[in-house]
Amino acid sequence: MDYDHFFNAALDTLHQERRYRVFVTLEKDAARFPHATRQTPTGTSDVVIWCSNDYLGMSMHPDTIGAMVDTARQMGVGAGGTRNISGTSGPIVALERALADLHRKESALVFTSGYVSNETGIATLAKLLPDCLLLSDEWNHNSMIQGVRRSGAEKAVFRHNDLEHLEDLLKAAGRERPKMIVFESVYSMDGDVSPIHAVCDLADKYNALTYIDEVHAVGIYGERGGGYSEEVGAQDRLDIIEATLAKGFGCIGGYLAAKSSIIDAVRSNAHGFIFTTALPPAVAAAAAASVTHLMNSNTERLAQRKQVQRTKEVLVKAGLPVRKNPTHIVPVIIGDAERTKLASDLLLDDHGIYVQPINYPTVPRGTERLRITPTPFHSDELIDQLADALVAVWGKLGLPLHAPQEDA
Amino acid sequence: MDYDHFFNAALDTLHQERRYRVFVTLEKDAARFPHATRQTPTGTSDVVIWCSNDYLGMSMHPDTIGAMVDTARQMGVGAGGTRNISGTSGPIVALERALADLHRKESALVFTSGYVSNETGIATLAKLLPDCLLLSDEWNHNSMIQGVRRSGAEKAVFRHNDLEHLEDLLKAAGRERPKMIVFESVYSMDGDVSPIHAVCDLADKYNALTYIDEVHAVGIYGERGGGYSEEVGAQDRLDIIEATLAKGFGCIGGYLAAKSSIIDAVRSNAHGFIFTTALPPAVAAAAAASVTHLMNSNTERLAQRKQVQRTKEVLVKAGLPVRKNPTHIVPVIIGDAERTKLASDLLLDDHGIYVQPINYPTVPRGTERLRITPTPFHSDELIDQLADALVAVWGKLGLPLHAPQEDA
Ligand SMILES: Cc1ncc(COP(=O)(O)O)c(C=O)c1O
Ligand SMILES: Cc1ncc(COP(=O)(O)O)c(C=O)c1O
Repeated sequence: MDYDHFFNAALDTLHQERRYRVFVTLEKDAARFPHATRQTPTGTSDVVIWCSNDYLGMSMHPDTIGAMVDTARQMGVGAGGTRNISGTSGPIVALERALADLHRKESALVFTSGYVSNETGIATLAKLLPDCLLLSDEWNHNSMIQGVRRSGAEKAVFRHNDLEHLEDLLKAAGRERPKMIVFESVYSMDGDVSPIHAVCDLADKYNALTYIDEVHAVGIYGERGGGYSEEVGAQDRLDIIEATLAKGFGCIGGYLAAKSSIIDAVRSNAHGFIFTTALPPAVAAAAAASVTHLMNSNTERLAQRKQVQRTKEVLVKAGLPVRKNPTHIVPVIIGDAERTKLASDLLLDDHGIYVQPINYPTVPRGTERLRITPTPFHSDELIDQLADALVAVWGKLGLPLHAPQEDA
Repeated sequence: MDYDHFFNAALDTLHQERRYRVFVTLEKDAARFPHATRQTPTGTSDVVIWCSNDYLGMSMHPDTIGAMVDTARQMGVGAGGTRNISGTSGPIVALERALADLHRKESALVFTSGYVSNETGIATLAKLLPDCLLLSDEWNHNSMIQGVRRSGAEKAVFRHNDLEHLEDLLKAAGRERPKMIVFESVYSMDGDVSPIHAVCDLADKYNALTYIDEVHAVGIYGERGGGYSEEVGAQDRLDIIEATLAKGFGCIGGYLAAKSSIIDAVRSNAHGFIFTTALPPAVAAAAAASVTHLMNSNTERLAQRKQVQRTKEVLVKAGLPVRKNPTHIVPVIIGDAERTKLASDLLLDDHGIYVQPINYPTVPRGTERLRITPTPFHSDELIDQLADALVAVWGKLGLPLHAPQEDA
């Protein structure tokens, strides 16, 4: 065994398979978002970010910046310990209270990321429940898939949003067996939504717990930003709501909200929660400021909706292959990895527009795409420039315009 | 299946087994560290924190606070995306460069926590190497144990720091089989250290990779804070160095440092790295400021060493059962869970001294303890007060003073 040779060969393979990624380095500027400065080895250039999951620009909001700045000054930059050993700060406790309130649940528990909250949350709950069956949507995010795997529990994967398939699996398991349905509200790559009420109906009928990932919906949907479950009035029908502080809320961290007994079970047993340093007070304070602001303000949501609507209209009118959906995500399908990468490179190099290509395995082969996320800060002018740039790139790559589109 | 009943019963069990934890909520104050304000439902009180892993107080350092404040103002509070999709910022790239430099490695890769870097780092490497055998110290941290489990690779656990046992296992596996030895430098509960050079000798002899967790050593040991491996001059003998940004460096996040080919392998395959939002630029900037400061300043390390030494001397002189070790961790052994908890409660309620009890499974039964971590900010006066308080508590609980002690 020659380790050097092995890892060098692995690297060569990455290059050959064109899987070697060079991350685009951006110097963000709160005052100019979505404009940013791209750093390359040879210099810098101005780009417009069109693929950020800071969906509402809350990472740049004066309230969140102010909270981070004030709290860092007052309490420093780190928590200094796990939640149990000197790492529980006033701001993290306040944040958990705000999140419980947001989702109308008894309690909430904060993790270092949405990835960790899913992975350790699902694994812990499914391990606790004797002989638990996990019913998992086939399009669930990697963090949920890992949580399902790590639980060691039996899993049954149902076809995406397929209620009949889900019902078959629930029926086969029977009322008595502990079951948890694990699904998302807004699926991030197509921007389609799950039929939350119908899933809850099935959960009621067959006595299953419901665990929903609202990562791409919190802050954005619902009167108070409580996510798609608030939008459709299903918050109290869901047993466990999981989400992130890193997208609509613009910070970092993840959480679960549920009944206190469920939260206490996770809090007391989840390794990924217990054995890690808590989020810094300054981060928790910024996140709490974001949650609180969006609970009380519709301004950002309305502005985002308007610009999303306009982006979709302008791109569709230009004949670009926008996949239809009811959300803030604008998928423009290209259909193969090579040209999606080329389109992204051309946008960046020739037009100063930054949109990452989305390839397999994140999306099915043949549906490779650009995933565009308009924020309240993308002006009408920027939208028009985006459309022009896309049309130019489409022309250069010989991609068809005005082709008939599939809906999501 | 009645889920409510199930989770309520689980909660009752937690209470009955005295495993139900109420986290102590602290309002830290950068200007007064290690003093903090404890929040209880009935009011607030002043406490001295004696169990923080912010070992050098770097979370309160003007450089780290300044970096977080400036960067938050300039770039906002969140990264807005995964590393690949708009989440790679100038500060995180600079941080990775500083960490590679710190450990004299070609590259470094930052994760959301030390927990995640261990878990996904070990799992990814062991999955890539065909038929890999993981040789794991029995006292390894939970995050490493989880990484070993998740890899699906065969594991062989060797007795803590037992080189003969390790050699037997290596020999049995043979030179040709891919092998990775997974161990820590400073074990956090006893504060003992591993024989790094001797482990590397065995790795050389039997052709194994070495993966070391320097979580409790970075910032603190070595001329530049490169950890225990720098202290003993073994940095270039270790293949992968893992550590955290949350303890000696006072922030949050974790990392690996290694050859570029190894880092690229992890970067390209580790789910827990790929599918999660990057650390905020403001956090990365604070961490980089901490790393850079401690690479150039011995002041904090020397001050800490002095206060640790003094704490050990004063406690030993008072007859308290301090477990000997060569590090900055001061374990005071009590030996049963109940009295350790009581001692901690008395210290907090009667003396305003905050030290969490450390119980099974974090330490073996019969070795339950208080784990004391003096920082440069714990004055001689505070050390004397700590000794007096401990002696008073020992008296109240009828614990023996001046009993003969085992070494770690
Ligand atoms: C559906 C979904 N869940 C969870 C996560 C993880 O959240 P975080 O970025 O906070 O780790 C993501 C993406 O990052 C996601 O898309
Ligand atoms: C040995 C060891 N490794 C890793 C970790 C995890 O690091 P982090 O707190 O950054 O998740 C810890 C403790 O938290 C630890 O004690």
